Amino acid sequence: MAAHKNNFLIEALKGTSQVFFMENPITGALFFVAMAYASYASGNWTTTIGAALGVCVATLTARLLDCDEPSVAAGLFGFNGVLVGAALPTFIAAAPQLWAYVIVGAAASTVITAACSATLTAKWGIPGSTGPFVLTGWLMVAGAYSFGGLHVTGDAPKLATDYVQGVVFLPQPMELVQIFFCNIGQVYLLGNEISGAIILLGIFIASVPAGIAAAAGSLVAMAVAIGMGADPAVVSQGLYGFSPVLTALAVGVIFLKPSPRVTLYALLATITTVFVQGALDVIVAPSGIPSFTAPYVLTMYLFIAPKKLMAPHPHQPVEGHMIGHDHPTSAPTRTAA
Amino acid sequence: MAAHKNNFLIEALKGTSQVFFMENPITGALFFVAMAYASYASGNWTTTIGAALGVCVATLTARLLDCDEPSVAAGLFGFNGVLVGAALPTFIAAAPQLWAYVIVGAAASTVITAACSATLTAKWGIPGSTGPFVLTGWLMVAGAYSFGGLHVTGDAPKLATDYVQGVVFLPQPMELVQIFFCNIGQVYLLGNEISGAIILLGIFIASVPAGIAAAAGSLVAMAVAIGMGADPAVVSQGLYGFSPVLTALAVGVIFLKPSPRVTLYALLATITTVFVQGALDVIVAPSGIPSFTAPYVLTMYLFIAPKKLMAPHPHQPVEGHMIGHDHPTSAPTRTAA
Amino acid sequence: MAAHKNNFLIEALKGTSQVFFMENPITGALFFVAMAYASYASGNWTTTIGAALGVCVATLTARLLDCDEPSVAAGLFGFNGVLVGAALPTFIAAAPQLWAYVIVGAAASTVITAACSATLTAKWGIPGSTGPFVLTGWLMVAGAYSFGGLHVTGDAPKLATDYVQGVVFLPQPMELVQIFFCNIGQVYLLGNEISGAIILLGIFIASVPAGIAAAAGSLVAMAVAIGMGADPAVVSQGLYGFSPVLTALAVGVIFLKPSPRVTLYALLATITTVFVQGALDVIVAPSGIPSFTAPYVLTMYLFIAPKKLMAPHPHQPVEGHMIGHDHPTSAPTRTAA
Repeated sequence: MAAHKNNFLIEALKGTSQVFFMENPITGALFFVAMAYASYASGNWTTTIGAALGVCVATLTARLLDCDEPSVAAGLFGFNGVLVGAALPTFIAAAPQLWAYVIVGAAASTVITAACSATLTAKWGIPGSTGPFVLTGWLMVAGAYSFGGLHVTGDAPKLATDYVQGVVFLPQPMELVQIFFCNIGQVYLLGNEISGAIILLGIFIASVPAGIAAAAGSLVAMAVAIGMGADPAVVSQGLYGFSPVLTALAVGVIFLKPSPRVTLYALLATITTVFVQGALDVIVAPSGIPSFTAPYVLTMYLFIAPKKLMAPHPHQPVEGHMIGHDHPTSAPTRTAA
Repeated sequence: MAAHKNNFLIEALKGTSQVFFMENPITGALFFVAMAYASYASGNWTTTIGAALGVCVATLTARLLDCDEPSVAAGLFGFNGVLVGAALPTFIAAAPQLWAYVIVGAAASTVITAACSATLTAKWGIPGSTGPFVLTGWLMVAGAYSFGGLHVTGDAPKLATDYVQGVVFLPQPMELVQIFFCNIGQVYLLGNEISGAIILLGIFIASVPAGIAAAAGSLVAMAVAIGMGADPAVVSQGLYGFSPVLTALAVGVIFLKPSPRVTLYALLATITTVFVQGALDVIVAPSGIPSFTAPYVLTMYLFIAPKKLMAPHPHQPVEGHMIGHDHPTSAPTRTAA
Repeated sequence: MAAHKNNFLIEALKGTSQVFFMENPITGALFFVAMAYASYASGNWTTTIGAALGVCVATLTARLLDCDEPSVAAGLFGFNGVLVGAALPTFIAAAPQLWAYVIVGAAASTVITAACSATLTAKWGIPGSTGPFVLTGWLMVAGAYSFGGLHVTGDAPKLATDYVQGVVFLPQPMELVQIFFCNIGQVYLLGNEISGAIILLGIFIASVPAGIAAAAGSLVAMAVAIGMGADPAVVSQGLYGFSPVLTALAVGVIFLKPSPRVTLYALLATITTVFVQGALDVIVAPSGIPSFTAPYVLTMYLFIAPKKLMAPHPHQPVEGHMIGHDHPTSAPTRTAA
């Protein structure tokens, strides 16, 4: 155990790589290279600095709260923090309050990760994954509208009526390559194809099957989004692909053992994620917040939750209801256990 | 078990009848007659075709995923699919992408049904009921705004300020009869009183107590909606009644054993559902989606969840908290188990 | 047990005091004095009458439903009802339908309290607290827009774009005193500093540590809200402070055993609650509903949920998935139990 405490940098880099389910510090370092390249290209370094701050604060908070030692060492308390740190400066202009926001948000993401572990995971067998990032990110960006010290720089809130309907288009070949890599880069909120390629390289270094799943997820998402006639300007930034990429990885190779049947199941999950992406964009728009990885999180939760031997409740009386039975000796059965 | 696999049509019809908690293929066939009559009257057959496609895809998906065999045979994996198939063409114009939507949505409803079984039902003793339909329907209709290949035909999104306030009216006697039957027909999204009457007949054929509960639910909903001054144009289509009808059935005769005390409890639940209907219509309106059976689902979950011998947590320290105790030997008690 | 049934008034007053986690009828009586003073000052007595009606209906409903006897006697089924009764007349104009609303809402809050006990508390060790009030209050106020017999008097619904951004201000010393006490009074929806002082006195009578935590929570909330540049008109009414006050109490002294480490944890939770307040105000605004104590409820749930020995799910296959394994003999492990 002592060795773990001496390698805070390794823990932080493993946390960075766990965004894509990998536990590999070299992969994490490559992900920081991808972020730095995008910052260099855009001239905005706050996202890379925020990511570094986020993963450090989240991991340190986990140590201070005595969270499960092997999990902290594996980076499992860091990957939500790195995303919080990358996301907040992407949607909120730099200010002293922004950095307070990143620190509190990253610390809160560790608490929420522990809360998910004790509820979703311990009782339902569902991994929390980036759910804590989505919740923290939504609250922090929405809250920024309320605070004069923070300025939201993303898109303005809108209603579903503001969407254009009825257009379908087909991108040029070179644009398809750009979309393919941006779909991967946007998991780290990077609309930069070179950054996406570096990230994909990092995944392949850690796991070839994971790299294949990520690439396949990006292709499926591209085909479905274009086939459904999604807004070309949104598709070309990779914004229809990053959640499906995570779904393809999570359902296809990480949380289920790969097999032909699992591959088909993951294909259904990946297509569903593209539809959920379109849906959540519309649903959260009136609040002025981005959907983040919520399409992946929601779809993954639903596809990983089903367990063997658990049947729907029959359309018959439930057991043990507060007022449903007059005899207090009735015992709960398997379905109500 | 072999016999089940030979009767796909029976399974599909049972699934159709399970929307009203019945396991009766004749009832299911009558429900299809009701849908076909409404399609004939309106000239729009996509809803009936969608319902048939939905129940088949959902049931077949359950077979392919090796879901609990007796549950599939009883139609418990079909009733969310039939509603997804009926609902999507009601709110989205016919197009190739619509049919892809119906197929993926119906398959996803089976996965979500299995997810509810392993979480809500297995751990909390709450039936999933039409929750999977509501979730699928919301995501699919909201997503349609994002996709150029789909065109939403329902009401435009609006804010709570768009509601007219301060008017109360009393309908004519003949209109009361229309409302009574439309309240039942709208469970299948049918604003047609003849269709509602056929559905009520189908329920009575399967179960007289269920038929009485459905009729009583419709009457209670009508009285409450009119008494509260709900929009006459919405009340007359039966849109304030279909969720309360399901609540009256579910709480009054299906999930609790009928008794005078249960009847009073179901009455409170049914009245509450009318209020929740008014609430959810307002809450989901900014996203441009209908509330579907969510008022029933939410109210039923809350009224069926309470179990005997389970007390509120006292305002004292919780057991086993991550940081709340310095001595690691403390064991959880019944309330934190 | 017989003694409990003879003291309905005591039970109702204990329920009133349980809003601040106290079980003390004198404290409850002082809270009614605080409400009455605010009603006297504003000339609007419907809130005080509603609160009295709400706590009586909720407690009586718990008796009729045979809810856990000691919990009813301790007022644990009354505190959500008293808040429903105080809140609805605050946001909805007096009318016959309003009183029907208060009665049904208070009765429903008891059912929802029992539902939380059987789910959140029994399975996850999380207290339901004022979650049932938030849910009931949201549904009832949103529903009021749909019903002509009810007239919502609060702020109009708005989008996040309607918020003014970029202003930070520092209040005068006397205003700081006003904010300090309003932060406490607003837990009972009272924007009156004298009422807040009476409530704080009531808390100190029941428990000195609780009084200190409430005062500290109010100070922290004030400092954070002003430092972040929250809208001065909202801050000065105490609307940024009432949820953090409850969080400071709940996390700092009620649900965790006080210690230096718990105090730091409660400080993080209290700061987080201020940010969540800013966020939920924006998120619920399009529906035209207030956030009520939701910022406290959400933050408290997340900070109380983490339990010892519960690790995040590793990024490896889950156990017992419906389709993930071909050999049916695999048993679930601790993480999927």
